[in-house]
Amino acid sequence: MDDSMISLKDMGSFHIGGREIEVKERPVKEVVLTKNGVPVQFDPNGTYQVEQMYVQYFIPRDLRGKIPLLLWHGGSLTGATYETTPDGREGWLNYFLKRGWAVYNSDAVERGRSGWSLHAEAFQDEPIIFPKKDQFERFRIGAGKGSYNKDRDKRRILQNNQFPVEYFDDFTRQIVPRWAKSDDATLAAYMKLVEKIGPCIIVAHSQAGPFAFRVAQALPDQVKAIIAVEPANGGDTQYSERLKNTPILTVYGDYISQDERWTHIRGKTMAYFQALRSEGGMVDILDLPELGITGNSHLMMMDRNNLQIARAIQEWLEKRGFYR
Amino acid sequence: MDDSMISLKDMGSFHIGGREIEVKERPVKEVVLTKNGVPVQFDPNGTYQVEQMYVQYFIPRDLRGKIPLLLWHGGSLTGATYETTPDGREGWLNYFLKRGWAVYNSDAVERGRSGWSLHAEAFQDEPIIFPKKDQFERFRIGAGKGSYNKDRDKRRILQNNQFPVEYFDDFTRQIVPRWAKSDDATLAAYMKLVEKIGPCIIVAHSQAGPFAFRVAQALPDQVKAIIAVEPANGGDTQYSERLKNTPILTVYGDYISQDERWTHIRGKTMAYFQALRSEGGMVDILDLPELGITGNSHLMMMDRNNLQIARAIQEWLEKRGFYR
Repeated sequence: MDDSMISLKDMGSFHIGGREIEVKERPVKEVVLTKNGVPVQFDPNGTYQVEQMYVQYFIPRDLRGKIPLLLWHGGSLTGATYETTPDGREGWLNYFLKRGWAVYNSDAVERGRSGWSLHAEAFQDEPIIFPKKDQFERFRIGAGKGSYNKDRDKRRILQNNQFPVEYFDDFTRQIVPRWAKSDDATLAAYMKLVEKIGPCIIVAHSQAGPFAFRVAQALPDQVKAIIAVEPANGGDTQYSERLKNTPILTVYGDYISQDERWTHIRGKTMAYFQALRSEGGMVDILDLPELGITGNSHLMMMDRNNLQIARAIQEWLEKRGFYR
Repeated sequence: MDDSMISLKDMGSFHIGGREIEVKERPVKEVVLTKNGVPVQFDPNGTYQVEQMYVQYFIPRDLRGKIPLLLWHGGSLTGATYETTPDGREGWLNYFLKRGWAVYNSDAVERGRSGWSLHAEAFQDEPIIFPKKDQFERFRIGAGKGSYNKDRDKRRILQNNQFPVEYFDDFTRQIVPRWAKSDDATLAAYMKLVEKIGPCIIVAHSQAGPFAFRVAQALPDQVKAIIAVEPANGGDTQYSERLKNTPILTVYGDYISQDERWTHIRGKTMAYFQALRSEGGMVDILDLPELGITGNSHLMMMDRNNLQIARAIQEWLEKRGFYR
């Protein structure tokens, strides 16, 4: 493996899934779309494509991963999650490409290049976006509530944090609006993607965790493994039996026991894993602090030791027989 | 040149530009962000990063382009414009990478992975999105007004159209909302990008055309050439003298003289080019039908003969001395 290069036999993108809606009885307006441009009639009535998902793919020249990796980002984020770190180091996308995995990196429905709908016919609720303090305090970068300050020097950071905190403000440029009631549309597009790709491994961060489990429940022959990085939740326990042949690796960072909300999320998800195990499921827990890897935030794919964690995932994939 | 492979010494992404806003005195709500998730307090008040721009970059192993190409997409679109075609062929991004150009492909402010702001503190107007009929009739795919029909078989297509019309509905998945009053923010982010990259060549489609001319006016030592693909407009004639050392190639597709709106847009832009020439500017016009290349829509980077047009651009770049 030449770590200095990425050799691809193909790369490209596509949009998948979604549906058509009809918008009716809205007023026509006249709008100018570019400075000093020609005014155009803007008639919003008509047919729209909505709830599609954007996917960018990279196929290495020397394939060593037996099946593709699907990278699914977390809430308020896009596929940019995996491309880089806020301080400009390599992200997990490059790491896995260099090791010979075909990688499909997507923007969940309504985020990023997937686009979003203005019309209530598609999205019934209002988009929301969180201010900077929320990411700082909720993603285990700052030391909990009240730790954020607009003035960088006054921010209280969790001790020995691996997140590149001096680039926190740069990180916040990645944040995009989200909708609270679009889970079904998001799930439907992820289903379409897995149906298109066939046998695959899902790497799911945070909000994407429950989507990965639910897609695997529905398509257990296609989803051959799940790497759930601090999943926001598990799947549905009534379908646990369907996942018994899908090995799962879950990864947790540091500071969780100090944080009531994360303790609750992990506890609930661990109960789900317990249910999977009782049905014969294979769940491996990678608790980073237990291995002596300390200081990881919720955004471990951007943390200073992000490639150390990628390496642990790579080793697990090898051990589970997905690599040649 | 090995046309079957893309060999990169680096790839990644970053967000550039934008500013902070303060949102105040909005009510706090409680929201559930994932199905069966833990409710969280959603306090929208605070600091937000807005008006940043997403840029994905690819640096080939064997650099042959002397300076990077910056790909700027048109209105209602994102950088996906250049990645692929609706029928899954290779886009211009791959074409230029395979020829050894460093390429920076961006999503304009407020589109795609650049994110967008919900708050009037940043965006003063409402987003707009066009229905399918608009792209069909306005991008010179269908035969003008009334040519779109929801039923594919009833659509009236411009004769010999090079757009992969049977994939028109797939194309519409790429469409994203836009804002009419965000030109200054968009321009500011493009300026930051050119300042970061240094000497470069801009490939600008449609709406991005006037942005390219305006950035070049402001940074004539950095923008070494502009390829304006059916630009929506020119720059400001009072600064024509500043562009006299920036060679410009402009490319026009077919059917323009049959279409009142496109005739007007081209006429206005040609008057701008005339002004540039009168100040010593170098403007080359690539009128595809005049060369016997017929049937090109406004989306020529997705048309069936998209690589033929890329080749013509490549030849111009070579002739102008930007390639070794």
